[in-house]
Amino acid sequence: MVLGLGPGSTAKHVVDRIGELLRQGKLKDIDGIPTSKKTHEQALSLGIPLSDLNSHPVVDLAIDGADEVDPYLNLVKGRGGSLLREKMVEGACKKFVVIVDESKLVNYIGGSGLAMPVEVIQFCWKFTASRLQNLFQESGCVAKLRTLGEKAEPYVTDNGNYIIDLYFKQSIGDLKAASDSILQIAGVVEHGMFIDMATTVIVAGELGLTVKNKY
Amino acid sequence: MVLGLGPGSTAKHVVDRIGELLRQGKLKDIDGIPTSKKTHEQALSLGIPLSDLNSHPVVDLAIDGADEVDPYLNLVKGRGGSLLREKMVEGACKKFVVIVDESKLVNYIGGSGLAMPVEVIQFCWKFTASRLQNLFQESGCVAKLRTLGEKAEPYVTDNGNYIIDLYFKQSIGDLKAASDSILQIAGVVEHGMFIDMATTVIVAGELGLTVKNKY
Repeated sequence: MVLGLGPGSTAKHVVDRIGELLRQGKLKDIDGIPTSKKTHEQALSLGIPLSDLNSHPVVDLAIDGADEVDPYLNLVKGRGGSLLREKMVEGACKKFVVIVDESKLVNYIGGSGLAMPVEVIQFCWKFTASRLQNLFQESGCVAKLRTLGEKAEPYVTDNGNYIIDLYFKQSIGDLKAASDSILQIAGVVEHGMFIDMATTVIVAGELGLTVKNKY
Repeated sequence: MVLGLGPGSTAKHVVDRIGELLRQGKLKDIDGIPTSKKTHEQALSLGIPLSDLNSHPVVDLAIDGADEVDPYLNLVKGRGGSLLREKMVEGACKKFVVIVDESKLVNYIGGSGLAMPVEVIQFCWKFTASRLQNLFQESGCVAKLRTLGEKAEPYVTDNGNYIIDLYFKQSIGDLKAASDSILQIAGVVEHGMFIDMATTVIVAGELGLTVKNKY
């Protein structure tokens, strides 16, 4: 079985548990495909056999968290910064199970008031940020470069790019159209909307678990 | 006047000539925006004042070559490898003038049998190449990693990415639809089709120059 291994706080537990089950002999014949350098190291240290999409273009299952889940099971991911590799691996999955708590449920993408990240090349990033902000002007979009630490150095992704965080005051409408408009901007590498990708979302609430299936 | 400075063999002459006119005092108040590191160095050595899209989000004019020009003035560019920065700068131009000789005129994009380049992130590039090839299966597409030298090391762009060269046996049909399909693949950064961007194409033929205007 080929498993996508995510880097979020939820997925970290999943990776730990897979390592444990392998050690105990309860799980066998697993190939893991990590979606970040950090997860790669974590999985290595747990002795999980690793592979990649070049060798395994079809992944059986990924289990990961999300930053937002809308009523149609569309997601925002990548506040942790590894949206691009996550999207490559999770887009190749037969089953993609998302685990969140109730606080991540939103009426529309961006509805939490938190960031929808866009990975952009470093070259002329201010120009790209300004084009992104203009694209969603009607939704009151504000675009900010993601920075790290006291010196506010730009955050650099595993692929050597920057992240522009988009904040929306209102819904951006048709997500597929929004996705195409974002990707059409030269300088954009990928965005954090995972549209039509999750097959199951498990929501942990005060009264227990709710399981939502796409099909 | 803000000028986009391209890196191709045609544009190299343009940049040399701009440097010469500046030295002679025949040209003044020029800011150049180079689209490759190589052109940046060339322009610096000629004393051309340089700027970028962050400071000048609107560029007055770029003059550059192209690898293919179709009957609607759509282009293939980037066989030289700097398609992404070229697209950012030339997409911000009020006037984008392309100079080619007759050999670059094609009936359809890809019609020369030469490469249409796609810039992709290094992570799992084989997987991305295979998705690109499958996308245009009906056009007999073959996808090849661009390599350099005897050791066939991957060519690395100014942005730290690889280039997958696509070869088509037949037309890929609607270019805007093809563009969106390519950009929707996670792992793709940009492609070398410049659709609806050139405002003028100057063609040098045996019998002289032909000027084609978009509008």
